[in-house]
This record gives sequence, C-alpha cells and structure tokens, in this order.
Amino acid sequence: MDLTALEQLLAAYKRDELEPREAARRISELHFEDIGYARVDHSRSTRQGFPEVVFGAGKTREQVVGIVERLVEKSPNVLVTHTDEGTFGEVRNVITEAEWHETARLIRIHRDKTERGVGEIAVVTAGTSDIPVAEEAALTAEAMGNRVKRVWDVGVAGIHRVLAERSLLQSARVAIVVAGMEGALPSVVGGLVSVPVIAVPTSIGYGASFGGVAALLGMLNSCASNVTVVNIDNGFGAGFVASLINRKWARITD
Amino acid sequence: MDLTALEQLLAAYKRDELEPREAARRISELHFEDIGYARVDHSRSTRQGFPEVVFGAGKTREQVVGIVERLVEKSPNVLVTHTDEGTFGEVRNVITEAEWHETARLIRIHRDKTERGVGEIAVVTAGTSDIPVAEEAALTAEAMGNRVKRVWDVGVAGIHRVLAERSLLQSARVAIVVAGMEGALPSVVGGLVSVPVIAVPTSIGYGASFGGVAALLGMLNSCASNVTVVNIDNGFGAGFVASLINRKWARITD
Amino acid sequence: MDLTALEQLLAAYKRDELEPREAARRISELHFEDIGYARVDHSRSTRQGFPEVVFGAGKTREQVVGIVERLVEKSPNVLVTHTDEGTFGEVRNVITEAEWHETARLIRIHRDKTERGVGEIAVVTAGTSDIPVAEEAALTAEAMGNRVKRVWDVGVAGIHRVLAERSLLQSARVAIVVAGMEGALPSVVGGLVSVPVIAVPTSIGYGASFGGVAALLGMLNSCASNVTVVNIDNGFGAGFVASLINRKWARITD
Amino acid sequence: MDLTALEQLLAAYKRDELEPREAARRISELHFEDIGYARVDHSRSTRQGFPEVVFGAGKTREQVVGIVERLVEKSPNVLVTHTDEGTFGEVRNVITEAEWHETARLIRIHRDKTERGVGEIAVVTAGTSDIPVAEEAALTAEAMGNRVKRVWDVGVAGIHRVLAERSLLQSARVAIVVAGMEGALPSVVGGLVSVPVIAVPTSIGYGASFGGVAALLGMLNSCASNVTVVNIDNGFGAGFVASLINRKWARITD
Amino acid sequence: MDLTALEQLLAAYKRDELEPREAARRISELHFEDIGYARVDHSRSTRQGFPEVVFGAGKTREQVVGIVERLVEKSPNVLVTHTDEGTFGEVRNVITEAEWHETARLIRIHRDKTERGVGEIAVVTAGTSDIPVAEEAALTAEAMGNRVKRVWDVGVAGIHRVLAERSLLQSARVAIVVAGMEGALPSVVGGLVSVPVIAVPTSIGYGASFGGVAALLGMLNSCASNVTVVNIDNGFGAGFVASLINRKWARITD
Amino acid sequence: MDLTALEQLLAAYKRDELEPREAARRISELHFEDIGYARVDHSRSTRQGFPEVVFGAGKTREQVVGIVERLVEKSPNVLVTHTDEGTFGEVRNVITEAEWHETARLIRIHRDKTERGVGEIAVVTAGTSDIPVAEEAALTAEAMGNRVKRVWDVGVAGIHRVLAERSLLQSARVAIVVAGMEGALPSVVGGLVSVPVIAVPTSIGYGASFGGVAALLGMLNSCASNVTVVNIDNGFGAGFVASLINRKWARITD
Amino acid sequence: MDLTALEQLLAAYKRDELEPREAARRISELHFEDIGYARVDHSRSTRQGFPEVVFGAGKTREQVVGIVERLVEKSPNVLVTHTDEGTFGEVRNVITEAEWHETARLIRIHRDKTERGVGEIAVVTAGTSDIPVAEEAALTAEAMGNRVKRVWDVGVAGIHRVLAERSLLQSARVAIVVAGMEGALPSVVGGLVSVPVIAVPTSIGYGASFGGVAALLGMLNSCASNVTVVNIDNGFGAGFVASLINRKWARITD
Amino acid sequence: MDLTALEQLLAAYKRDELEPREAARRISELHFEDIGYARVDHSRSTRQGFPEVVFGAGKTREQVVGIVERLVEKSPNVLVTHTDEGTFGEVRNVITEAEWHETARLIRIHRDKTERGVGEIAVVTAGTSDIPVAEEAALTAEAMGNRVKRVWDVGVAGIHRVLAERSLLQSARVAIVVAGMEGALPSVVGGLVSVPVIAVPTSIGYGASFGGVAALLGMLNSCASNVTVVNIDNGFGAGFVASLINRKWARITD
Repeated sequence: MDLTALEQLLAAYKRDELEPREAARRISELHFEDIGYARVDHSRSTRQGFPEVVFGAGKTREQVVGIVERLVEKSPNVLVTHTDEGTFGEVRNVITEAEWHETARLIRIHRDKTERGVGEIAVVTAGTSDIPVAEEAALTAEAMGNRVKRVWDVGVAGIHRVLAERSLLQSARVAIVVAGMEGALPSVVGGLVSVPVIAVPTSIGYGASFGGVAALLGMLNSCASNVTVVNIDNGFGAGFVASLINRKWARITD
Repeated sequence: MDLTALEQLLAAYKRDELEPREAARRISELHFEDIGYARVDHSRSTRQGFPEVVFGAGKTREQVVGIVERLVEKSPNVLVTHTDEGTFGEVRNVITEAEWHETARLIRIHRDKTERGVGEIAVVTAGTSDIPVAEEAALTAEAMGNRVKRVWDVGVAGIHRVLAERSLLQSARVAIVVAGMEGALPSVVGGLVSVPVIAVPTSIGYGASFGGVAALLGMLNSCASNVTVVNIDNGFGAGFVASLINRKWARITD
Repeated sequence: MDLTALEQLLAAYKRDELEPREAARRISELHFEDIGYARVDHSRSTRQGFPEVVFGAGKTREQVVGIVERLVEKSPNVLVTHTDEGTFGEVRNVITEAEWHETARLIRIHRDKTERGVGEIAVVTAGTSDIPVAEEAALTAEAMGNRVKRVWDVGVAGIHRVLAERSLLQSARVAIVVAGMEGALPSVVGGLVSVPVIAVPTSIGYGASFGGVAALLGMLNSCASNVTVVNIDNGFGAGFVASLINRKWARITD
Repeated sequence: MDLTALEQLLAAYKRDELEPREAARRISELHFEDIGYARVDHSRSTRQGFPEVVFGAGKTREQVVGIVERLVEKSPNVLVTHTDEGTFGEVRNVITEAEWHETARLIRIHRDKTERGVGEIAVVTAGTSDIPVAEEAALTAEAMGNRVKRVWDVGVAGIHRVLAERSLLQSARVAIVVAGMEGALPSVVGGLVSVPVIAVPTSIGYGASFGGVAALLGMLNSCASNVTVVNIDNGFGAGFVASLINRKWARITD
Repeated sequence: MDLTALEQLLAAYKRDELEPREAARRISELHFEDIGYARVDHSRSTRQGFPEVVFGAGKTREQVVGIVERLVEKSPNVLVTHTDEGTFGEVRNVITEAEWHETARLIRIHRDKTERGVGEIAVVTAGTSDIPVAEEAALTAEAMGNRVKRVWDVGVAGIHRVLAERSLLQSARVAIVVAGMEGALPSVVGGLVSVPVIAVPTSIGYGASFGGVAALLGMLNSCASNVTVVNIDNGFGAGFVASLINRKWARITD
Repeated sequence: MDLTALEQLLAAYKRDELEPREAARRISELHFEDIGYARVDHSRSTRQGFPEVVFGAGKTREQVVGIVERLVEKSPNVLVTHTDEGTFGEVRNVITEAEWHETARLIRIHRDKTERGVGEIAVVTAGTSDIPVAEEAALTAEAMGNRVKRVWDVGVAGIHRVLAERSLLQSARVAIVVAGMEGALPSVVGGLVSVPVIAVPTSIGYGASFGGVAALLGMLNSCASNVTVVNIDNGFGAGFVASLINRKWARITD
Repeated sequence: MDLTALEQLLAAYKRDELEPREAARRISELHFEDIGYARVDHSRSTRQGFPEVVFGAGKTREQVVGIVERLVEKSPNVLVTHTDEGTFGEVRNVITEAEWHETARLIRIHRDKTERGVGEIAVVTAGTSDIPVAEEAALTAEAMGNRVKRVWDVGVAGIHRVLAERSLLQSARVAIVVAGMEGALPSVVGGLVSVPVIAVPTSIGYGASFGGVAALLGMLNSCASNVTVVNIDNGFGAGFVASLINRKWARITD
Repeated sequence: MDLTALEQLLAAYKRDELEPREAARRISELHFEDIGYARVDHSRSTRQGFPEVVFGAGKTREQVVGIVERLVEKSPNVLVTHTDEGTFGEVRNVITEAEWHETARLIRIHRDKTERGVGEIAVVTAGTSDIPVAEEAALTAEAMGNRVKRVWDVGVAGIHRVLAERSLLQSARVAIVVAGMEGALPSVVGGLVSVPVIAVPTSIGYGASFGGVAALLGMLNSCASNVTVVNIDNGFGAGFVASLINRKWARITD
C-alpha cells in the first residue's frame, strides 16, 4: 500500500473533508487497482521479496499482458504460471527481461536477486516425468530469493537412490518432494530429515492413479509427521510456502 | 471329486442306463454337496493341501457349523475367517481340534502339517495396527504347508527399520506386505527383493484414508514392477496366493 | 542413536572383529528397539525437543502402555493421540506426570518445557465444534517448546470476527487454521498474513461435507498461495510441522 | 396457452361434440408444439417476461434454428446457451435482432426491455477466469427485465477487495456469486448481506478441483445460512432464479 | 450492533482519545461477544426478524445453553437445530418459552410472531420419511414470520398426487421441495410453478442413494430452470432462504 | 379408482353443480387417500394382483400400522419391506393373516393366491450371504401370483455349480440373479439363458466392495446383453419387475 | 449349434473313436468359431430372431468387417454399434444390405423382418439431445421383430408433455425411457404404466451430471417399483431386453 | 552392482584413504548412473534375465533414447512401454535390434532368449478390445524368458468359450487374465485352475465402466481366492510378476 497516499487520506478525514464512509472506501481501494477484468492486488509488500504471480490458464493473452504490465511497475519479480510460449512472446514485447522456462511452462521476470533465505531448499522428484512440476517450484523459490538444490529421479522402488542423497537432504531448511503414481517418496524423505517436507502430488501415472488422486491421498496419509501437502501439480504453491519457511524472520511489529 | 463314483456313472452311461443329459448332471453334482443354504464345494483337490475356507461374515452360527461339519469330512485343514469367538465355541463343540486366533479373528483346523513350499514366505507390516490382517495371511499360509517369517512394524517413515530386515526379505520366495495409511511399504520392499510382492491394504488410518482406499490406490500405482494387490484387509487371499506361488510345482498332466 | 555404542561398533569393525554384513545390521538396530508388536523408533534426536508420539487407535491398552514405557526412558515429552480415558488411567499408573486432555482425547507427558521457537504459533478455528482438533495441534506445539495463541470461532460467515484478530495473526511466525464444513477460513487467513498457513480440515458437518472431504478439497484448492494442508482431523501433524517451521534453525553440520 | 382455443375446446366438449378423453388430449396439446425432434413448450406465460431458453449443446445447428424460429413467434426474448458462433450465424440469418456474446458463448434476442425487478441483482466473481459464467448469469437477468451490477475478481485471498464493495452488495435484492477453486466467496458475501445469495461453482481450477466439484461442495456446506447452489457453470440458472426472486410479486389469483 | 456504543467510540477517536488501531478493534468487537468457546454474533439486525440459530451437533449441552442464554437477551426468536431432548430440558430450565419439536429434533423460542412475508411458503415432501427435514424448514420459516403450507407425500411415482396440489403450489411466493431417493420432485414442481423452488435432498434411501448423494445430484441437474439446491438434510437453510425471498423488501439505504 | 364415485362427479359437473376447477381436484383425489403423514395410493388396480407395498424404514410403527390398515381394505395382498419383528407384532394385532419372514425382514399379507404368470421365475444367489435379498425378491414374486424356483449359492468361482442348474434356468420365463462382491454371476447366467435377467447387487463384501458398489458396477457393465439392474439390496424391485415380465399380457384397451 | 455335427460327434464317441476328453472339447467348439482376434459366438439360436451384435469401439475396421462376414453367414440380422461411417463403407462393400444410421452411429443388416412381439415397445426421451441413444434402442428392437413407438422430448420440467402421451404409453407391453441430466422421467413414466420400464441414463448434461452418473443414480433409486436400469448410453441393451420381454413366450422344453 | 568397483572402494576405506561418509556415498552410487534427468538403475541383476524397462509416457524422445542407450550397455533385453512409433524410429537409429509392436505400443530389444521358466504362462482376454494390454503382458513375459500361451476373446457371457480352454489353462504355471467392462473373467478362470491368477483390468467399456474402475473393483472383490490384481491397463506389470512366479527358484544365499 502507498503509505503517503494513506496519510493524505487520513489527514483529509480528520479535517472533515471526507465522510467516514468515503474515507473507508478510499483506504480499501489503495490496496488494489481495478482494471476491469481484474483487481490487481498491490497490498502484499513487494519489499519483502514476494513475486507477483499470475495464474495464466483461462485468461486471454491480452489479459495476461495487461496484468503483467501493472505488476512490473511495482514489483521487480513477476511469475506467470500455467501459460504458453505464445503468451510469453507478447509479454516479452513489453518487458524485455522476461524469461521463458519451457519445462515448467512459466514466464519469469527476475530482476531482484537479493538472497533472503536462512538455508537451502531441496527440491526432489520421484521420477523424470515429475520434473516439470518440480521446476515450477524451484523457479518460484529462486524468484523469492532462495538457493535451491535439485534432486531428480530418486523414487522409492530403488531406495538406495534417495539414501545416497541423505546428507544433502538433511542439510536443507525445507524439502519439497514431488511425486506421482503412489506418492510414497515424501514419507521416506520425511523420515530422513527433521525439517518440514512439502509434498506435491503430480498427475503422472495412469489407470487407478486418477490424475494424481492416488498420490494426493498417499501424501495426506503419510506416516511421517513432518509432511504437509499442496494441490496436485501445484509446484508454484510449494515453492512459495517453502520460501516463507526459509525466510529470515522477525516479528512484524506493526 | 469321488473318482469311484465318477467311474460308476460313466460305466452306467456306456451301458445306456443313463441318458446323456442325466449323466452330465450327475457328474456335475459330484463336485459339490447341496445343503440347502450352501453348495459345499468339494471339487478342489484336498490332496494338494488346500484348506477349505468359510467366509464367516453374514452367515448364522448354525450355517457356519453346518458347513464346517461337511468340510472336515473331506479336508484335514479348514479355516473360518471374519468370525467371532462365540462361533468358535460352537465349532469346537463338534470339532475339538479347532483353534481360535483372537488377533486375526479366525478359526483354524490344522491337522495336516505336511510342508509343501519351496522356500519361506515373509509377512511384513508397516505398523502395529496392521498385525491382525497380517496374522490372517500368516495363519493361512501355515495351514497350506508353508514356513512363515513375521516382520512387524517396519513402515517407511523410519526407513532403517525395513532396511535392517533386508537379508531376511531377500531370502524369501514371496513377500506379503501389509500396510494402511499411505500404503507405501510394498513399493520399498518391492525394490529390495526380486520375488513377487503381494500387497495388502488395510483399513487402518482416518480422514482421507477412506477406510483403506488411500493404501489400495498407492499399492495399485506402485512404481515397483513386482507388486500385485488384493482387496483391503484381505489377509486370507494374500496368504492363499503366496502359498500357490511358493508351492513345489509340477505340470498337471491330466 | 547411542553414539558411544556406534563408535564401539565401528571400532570393532575396523579391528576385523565384525563381518561387514554383521556390522551394518547392528548399526541399523541401534536406531530402534524391537518389542515384538512394535519397533520403537529412537533415531530422532530427542535432544531437539521432538516429543515421541503414539497413535493410540487400533492398539490395545497393553500395547500403548508398553510403548510409552520404552519412550519415557529416552524422551522427556511424550504424546498419545486418538486414545481414551481408560488408557490414560493405565498410563498414569506407570508415569505419574501423564496429563489427560479430554477435549483433544490426548495423553501428554510434558517434562521438558524449554522454549524452542522464534515466534508464536497461532491456532485458529472456524467454529466451536472444531476446537478438539485445534487443541490437539496446540498441545502438540506446546510440547515441542512453542508459545501458542488460541483463536476460536472466527469462521468466514461473520468475517468481522477474524478481521478483529488481524494483528494477532499477523504477528505469529506460523498459523494453523482448523475448519470443517466448507473449509474457507484458511484462504482468508492466508490473505491476511505473510507467513505459512497450515490448514486442517475437520470432519465437522453433515450431508455433502462427506466427513471432511468438502473442507479438504476447499483447502487444497485455496486461492491463497501460502496454504498447505494435512489430513482430515490431523491436529497433531499440524502442530508438529508448525513447530518445525517456528524452530530456531541452524544448518545441521553433521 | 391460447385461451381462445381453449374456450372453443371446452364449449365443444359441453356440446358433446368431443369425448372426454379427446378433450383432455387436445387441451394438453395446447401447451406445446411438436416439431418432431422437440416439443416446444409454450405453456409458460411469456407476458411475464420469461425468456425462452434453448440449451444448445448436443443439438444440431438445424435443430437450434428450428426451435428458435418457433420461439420468436411467441416470445420477444430468447436465449441460446452453450452454443457457438457458427450457430449464431445461422440464427441471425432468420432473426436479425440476434446478438452474439462471445464471453458467455450465448445468443440473445432481447426485444422486450421492460423493467420488471424491485431492486438490483449483483453478480460477483472470485476471479477473472470466472467471468464467462458470470456473464451468462448477467445477460439472462437483463433479458428478464433486471438491472445488474457486475463486480469482478474479488476472491477471498485478498479479502479487502470484497469488503470494498460491501455497500454495493448490501443494496442489492439478490446476489449471484460465481467462484471456482475452493468456492469460498459465497460464504463471505453471505455474511455481508441479508438477502439471498445464489452460489455458482465454476470448473476453473486444476488438480483436486475436479472440474468444479471442490467449489460445489464448498458452497453446499456454506456456513452462511442464506446461500443456495446451482450446478457447476450454470450461470443461466442462477440468473433465472435471481430474476424470479427480484420480480415484483402478486399472488396469482387464478 | 449497538449504535450508541458505536457513536461514543467514534467521538472518542475524533477527540484523539483513541489510537486508530484501537478504535478499529473496538468497533469490530461491537459485532460479537466472545464467551471463550464461541463468538456470539450479534451483528445481524434482529429487528428484521432473523432468528438466531445454534447448530447443536458437536457442542456440549453446557455450550448450547451458554450460547442460547446470550442470544435470548438480544433476539426474541432463537432456534437450536440438530439437537436432542436432553439438551432441550436444560434449555427450558433457563428459558421457559422454549418448545421441543420431536419430528425435526429442534428447539424453538418463538416470542415475536410478527408476519413479515408477502405471500406463503409451500413446503412439500416426496415421502413420509422426508417429513423431519421438511418440518425443520417449516418451523424455521414460521419463526421468521411466514405463513407456511405443508404438503406431504406427493412423490413422482404417483404423479396425480402432486398435480392435485397444483393450485396450492402456484399460489405460493416460494416453494421448498424435500425429497430423498432419486430427488425428482423439485423438477416436477419447478415445471408447475413460476416462483423459485428450493430443493432439499434428504438422506432417505439405501444402496446407491449414498446417503442423499443421488438426490443431491438429481436436483443440481434439474431440467427446471427455477430450482436451486441446499445441502443434504438442510431443512433449516431452505427455510431461511425461502424467508428472505418472501420478505417484504425495501432497499437498504444505509 | 372408485368408478361409481367418478361417474357421480362427472354427472354433477355436467349439471353445472361443480366448477371445472373443483371437479378436476375431486377427480384427482379419488386416486389416493390423505391420512396426514401419507397419501395412500389406490390408483393402481389391485384387481391385477399388484400387492400394495410399504417401505418400512424411516417410518414409525404407528405410521406403518396406519398405512397397512388403509391398504388391506382395498388390496388382498400387502408387503412391508425393510421392517422389524416389533412392527410385525403391531401389524398382526390388527391383521391376523400377516406373516413374518425373518430372513427377508418382511411382513407379508398374502390372501389372494391366484396364479398370474405364464412361466416360472428363477431366483438365484451367488452366495449364502445373499439369501436375505433373494428371499425378498422371491416372496414378492409369490405375492404377485408367480411360481418361483430358488437356486442358492452358485457363484462363479465354482462355475460347475451354476452349470449344473442350466436346464432349470433355461426353462424359466425370467431370472433374478442376486450377488455381492464382484457381482459376476448375472453375466454368466445371462449367457446361459435367452430370457431377461434382472441383476440385484447386494452389499455383501468388505473393503473395496464399497457396500455393493463393486457388484453394481459389474452388473451395469455386463457383457451379456440381456441383463438389467436394480438398486443395491433391492430384492423387492427385482421381484416386482420379474412379475410384470412373467404376467399374462393383453393390451389394455382402455 | 449345428445339431448334425453334434450327433456325429456323439456317435463317434460311442463307437470309441473319440476319447472322452477329445469329445468334450469338440462339442464345446461347435458353439463358436475362432478367427484369431475373436471367437465368434454362434451358440445363440438365430432362429429365434436374435440379431448378432458387434461392439465396434476399440476394434479395427478390418476386425469389424471380418466378424460381420462370419455373422451374416448364419444370422439374417446383424448390428454394429459404437461405430463410424468409414467402417460402414467397408462393411457395405461386402454386405450390400447394410444400412447406416447416422443418429445412432449404428450399422444394421435387417433381412429378416418377421414380427415376433406380443405388443408394442414405447421408446421415450426426456430431451432432444437424448435421441441418439433412444434411436439405438429403437433400431435394435425393430431388428428383433418388434413394432416401436417413438416419443421424443417429454421431460419432467413440462409434465403436461408426458401426460399427453399417457394412453400411448399405457398401451405398450414395455417402455424404454431415455434421459440425461437428473434422469427423473423413468419414475414418472413408471407411475403411469403397469408394465416394465427400462431406464437408460445418458451422458447428456454438464457439471455435476458427471457424464451420466447423476441420471444413473436417479434411476437406480427410482421410487417407482417397475423400473430397471442399464448402463449409461446403452440404448442397445435396453432395446435387446425390451425385445425379450415383448417376445411371444413358450417354455423351452428341451 | 559392479563388484570389482565395490571391493576397491572397501579396500580404500580400510586403508583410511576414504572417510566413512565418502565411502558410503560412493557405494550407494554404484547402484545407479545419474544422467541429469534420470538416475538409471543398474542394481537389479541383469544376469537373472530381468529386462530393463522404461515407462515412455511423459518423457521426451531424447530422454527415452538417452536412457535406453545407457541400459543396453548392461542389459541384453530392454522394454519401452507406453510409447509411440516416432520414438521407436529414434531408438532404432541407435539400437538396430529394436522391434516395434504396434498392438501393444511397445519397443522391445530382445537379445537374450534363454528360457528361464518352469512352466508356461497363459495370457487370456475377455474380448478382442483387450488384446493390446494382453500383448504387453505377453511380450514382457517372453522377454523375461518364458513360453506364453495366448487365449483371446473368451469372456463370461459365452461361458463355453473359456470352458473349451480348460485344459490349456490348467496346465499353465500362472495365468494372466485381462478384462474390461465388468471384469468377471478372472473369477471364472480362478475357479478352473489351481495356480495364481493375475487379473488385469482394462479401460475398455463406456458409461459406468469409469475407465476401468468397474473391472478393477470386480477383480479386487473376486470370490476366487487365487486372484491378485494390478493397475488398470498394466499389462507390463502382470507379465513381470507372472515371470517371477514362473521362474526357477533357488534361495539367494548371499
């Protein structure tokens, strides 16, 4: 929120130049910008390193470009997830720093590279096919100022593969574990480390995997106590929460 | 099937004392015994060591006793699953060798103890709460002439527990792995051994375990290639199939 | 793991007094204690303030008491969840410090009260009926050395109730949000704070709540990026992960 | 129904020119017109401002045009939902007033613009991607003689956005709230207003949104008492019922 | 909200006796009363005839009595749903006007009987077994100042039964239709009337009715455009919304 | 319908003693009798041998007795399904011919024993535990004037058992096949006979049988073309339809 | 089965020219013809007017043509369902009488037009979009020697449309009712007629219709006793069973 | 694992040239080869005749070729499942022995044709459309050194077809039974043979087959005790386990 604007509003209210109702409304509106098809939310402090994020699916290219244009004015880092290369082309026309990440199908504008984490974030996959979702998590965590360690293809059917990475995993502040099919890897990683594990089910599999439901249920029922779960294929959410966990923290005193 | 009776029937047919239709019907009926509420199936050769099995749920005590009485005439070993101690009391009144297994809630008549397997059957559980189902499997396998190794409470959240049993598992001819919650243990065991793994989901868990569905789906989607699955809580079925796998085999030439 | 014992084992191995295979097995077994029906896991360092936890459902009272007896020898704090007052009575016979928490149906042994968190953990419920699950989370977090703020009955249908607690929520290091029915509160709290939110669906509701499934799905699909989810009614897991997030962290260098 | 035709039929019956059976049949048939593949229903009084509506999916273009031709003879306003621009082209060939609404994928013939409501209908979306369904609702409500206020993109993760529209919402006679993902917005709006809220789940989302099921369940379990629900993506139904609620009402005395 | 208290707060703020933050908090708290296990919501204007409602399931008797005691101070009419006769006994000890409705399992305090509706509300059931849910709807609507017409047991398999009530249904301002099993009655009623129909699925049925899911899905997919749906067995919600629809309406000008 | 009463009504209408609206209403009401909690349907011709049927679940004993008292005045045969022995006791107090069938939990009043079928109805079960549902079907079919052949416990795992009954099955006019678990028997019987097969899934089974869903789905997907399905455990419905199929048929000319 | 061939086999067996095992195998093989990818089943007597039916989906065009070529040698009438116009082209190359039915996507060879039914079969749809499935039923029934009455678009939201066809429906020997969305029409028709009703759910609908599941569940839970159900979109099965019900019946005496 | 490399590592460790941590890591890495996007697992002894298998879906062509190139260096037989002809083209460019199996959509490199089974494996389908999945099973079993008997199109609706193959089935060491729709064939085969039956549900069917769920549930609930189940369409897994069962077995003594 623009603090100067807020102070001016409050002063005007005290001088009786504004009715209480009108004052309240104007204060609320400082938080976002209404561009017709969207209310672009500016209330999260971008000084803390949160990237602004646009969920690309179900929006027209014009809408994505319009929203990104507003965001880059106030935020150095911006992500567009669930998008395509054509949209990237139009975004790059207006913001030349935009990068295209084919594997994750994600546009990233990454101008502020300040490091903000206390440790590292491990991003782990059970299989090769889970990499796109894991990359979405890793790219998000990097855009939020974190160092990321990638560990691909260490699923439980060859348990020695994940055991070989035990010390890497144990040195991370938080682990993101991405798995489809039976989704068992988070439980095993959860047993190896003493930090939070964020489990991401993927839609990889066939038949009774039901588009990721089998993996999701497996993770929700994990016998490891340090596992929490996000939506199927939600690499972005996992990267976002992992960044909040890893963030140097000080009580917000106001 | 009673071979003498069969030969007499065939002879009578050749002598034209029986119409073809009548002959066919009588032959069919040699296979089972109709006692009104049940057709007791005698066609499986009891000489091979198959126990006769009664599924106790949904039958009255009188029906269970009646069926068991018919079975013990032809089969040395009999199991009653999904039953209770009261039914056991009535069964023991007529067959004194009957044993009651409280943990598995199973009645066993185990008179023929011939060993019939080529190796051992490992029965493994993820947790303490899975033991009742695992015992049903183990008791069945023993009744079918197998040596059984029991390995309890080695779930994946403490992966070192199952690794410590690696050599025991690797020396078995077949492994039965019983797990509730996320059902991940069969995949890990499947990666450790090179023999068939029979996965048994249990209804242990709460919330999104949905009475064993989470474990069932996890097992069906196992990334280990040597895993097959039976119904939720079906310890008996797992013990039965494991016994067939372990059985000394010779092509049936007639 | 008992480090002295480990060093002795390694020394013996170097002196060729132990075969490699035997050495590996003995090392593995240092991690847990096999008491027949359970392998009590001692590998998690209790010096870090992790309580040992027993999932009470599906175990006999004797089993619970037996496991707790082993745990209290090595761990100052122990929890038994999903249990009943009768079991508590038997546990208290052997460990007099045991406390009974009726609302959460949980036994707690809480001897080490060292504070280990960097901030506070907010535990929030949507309704009065969600309090038992929330208490399980709060009691767990306290047993792991955290200060907890409880905020009950601030569900979204009266949005002013949660808004009135905004500053309390914003000052926490992590928030646990417990809700049944439509499970919407975590999204709203997620929008108000910039720390991780752990959402706990409860089985409160009727009809199309399907025992907590509606709340679970709502939380998994949260439009707030900082929300992760645990199993239905899993207050313990939420309290455990929140404690790991709140913990003062230093890279484990060995 | 054509009242003159009805009177003639009844008179004929009283003169014994018609058997009772034949009279009943003819009366019934006054209600609709059978054009082979459809029975076009004319029994709803079009004088009350109900548009006739054609569900376009699963019908051939010829069928849609044929049905619309019959409808426009008796009804000034007609809607075709779930259709495409090609069908619109053929409809416009025969009815030049037809309008194409790309966002809602809906054909509208809107010749009678009489105002029939007592207040306004607010149509609200949680996100930009929900607009197509919301537009279907808004266009329907307008075709039925209502003033509509559109409020887009005020989802619960940024709760200040919907609070900023509080007075607009509170002044409406009825609110339609359209949301995908977790579907939490209707509960929040329901708590802010004291009029009926019609919740419309959308299929927006991915993974565990299951094509709108998560939103649907959330809305059915709303903790706000003034929420009712229609089918996933059913903007038309919501607009229709909202119009009936907003309609100036007088007891039908015959 | 207590307007005098609010004015005093605002005056104090203007006199600089209150910090803005403190002022905002106190204003928020005027809306509800915190009694520990519940935040009793007083913000809905009771002058409009809304009863206060307590969902009894999952609350202790002491909690129900405590909440009711707070509510009756400010609201003449109070409902407790999903409760039992024992709780009623304790409620009547403190509020002698409390009535017990066995069929609906509902406590009602009905002191203000002002009529507030513009027309009548029809409450209709498909079968005899659906009456308890329908009574919950009817009792709620009466407590909110409406005249109610009850029509029991007119399910679609004997279509003449509902046709015989056609004129009664057509004269109502809104219809509540309660049905289990296939839930087809709302569609038929929806075709007979030109006012909103609120469909209430019930858990009556067996087998593939899945506790009301079959009826719920049937109602959500109704081919009648004027049908909206509430949760399975949610008679209260249906009665509440029907009352809002039937209410004499005037734009809220502040 | 009482034809004399109908003629009197029509005559009065022709004499202008009745308004058309009133006449229509009275005619409709001839079809059923309103006893408050139920509209007892008398419109089905009892002369054709249809028994009147009361679904007992969810009705009080008083309601069941009240409805049965009305029915026995007009119908010689009456069934009460899904009931208990206590209700039977009260029914027998007023109708001494009432019979109690413990296995099917069904009350039957069977006074008219006219034979009405062209052939026999075969009722077949897969297992002993399916007999209660099958008995409900058989008792219904008998009450509707059919000869019934019962064939119990011929499930597909011992295929010779059903093959032994091939000629009995092939001589029936219609077959009812009752099975739980995987529900495969109807497909096999369907392949053996050239008459309609009515498949009845039962809730017998455990785990992934999901209360009969597995059997239901199996039957709906039967590869035999002559199979139709009724609800889980709906023996009554199967017996009813089988009776209609077996009935001597003549075109109804009025 | 070819009776001459059978007699020769039996004679050879009696002359001891065939071993019993060999005799049994040869007899079995008389029932079908093995063409590699399929075993064409000839055991159903084509003299009774059963058409042979090929399920086209999942088979190559060559397979369909190959199977049809075998069938037309023994059966005058053949159907291919779930197929396409390209396959029809290839079938017509070899069988010139083949007809293509675009609406039902079905190939029909209809050379034997003997009438075999005792009455008529009514085929009814709820909507225009349900016609393709209904046509599949009607074309099947005609191919099996029945007169069919088609009644399109009489869904329950305009109940007068189906009431207008009451006498047509009541004069049929059996009714097939095809409906998507809520699937309520079979219950209404079931209440109007006293013959069997075969309900066919269709996948018409959207959102919570779940591809026909809502209609399927509605039909399975029908409150009309004379309704049985076939699989979603299974018009063929409905037409087949209806034909068996309508068939002139004589006990098969051998 | 390369034993020479292992011995060298252990020797180096004993000479204190390696830290214990480093030694452990290197040993682990002997088991697999890290090629960036995949960890190619070499720990399974290829001398036993296990083919290496690549799940092709979700991998790029470059990834498949890269993994296959690594595998063929160590393993004579390799399978790629769930792939396409274009990928085959690129694989054949580097490994000329590669074969393309169109029906099963599988690439096979089959250089070692040693026979390793004790008996034969029967692969059976219910219908023609199930052949692709069955071929995947058969090709896998052959690649693992087994003789395979194929039995196509013997589904239960024509029970004589499977009975005609009884002796072939009874002579196999293990049977794989592949079926869609209701999935009943494994139960029937299970009753005919006394060896393990591996049931493979297929996604063949429509409507309430739910992509193979109906078949899967049928098989899990099989009343035959010797049936285990793999995932929908998982022909590979069935072939793999069947090969392990059929394998000549000797206790692994190290």
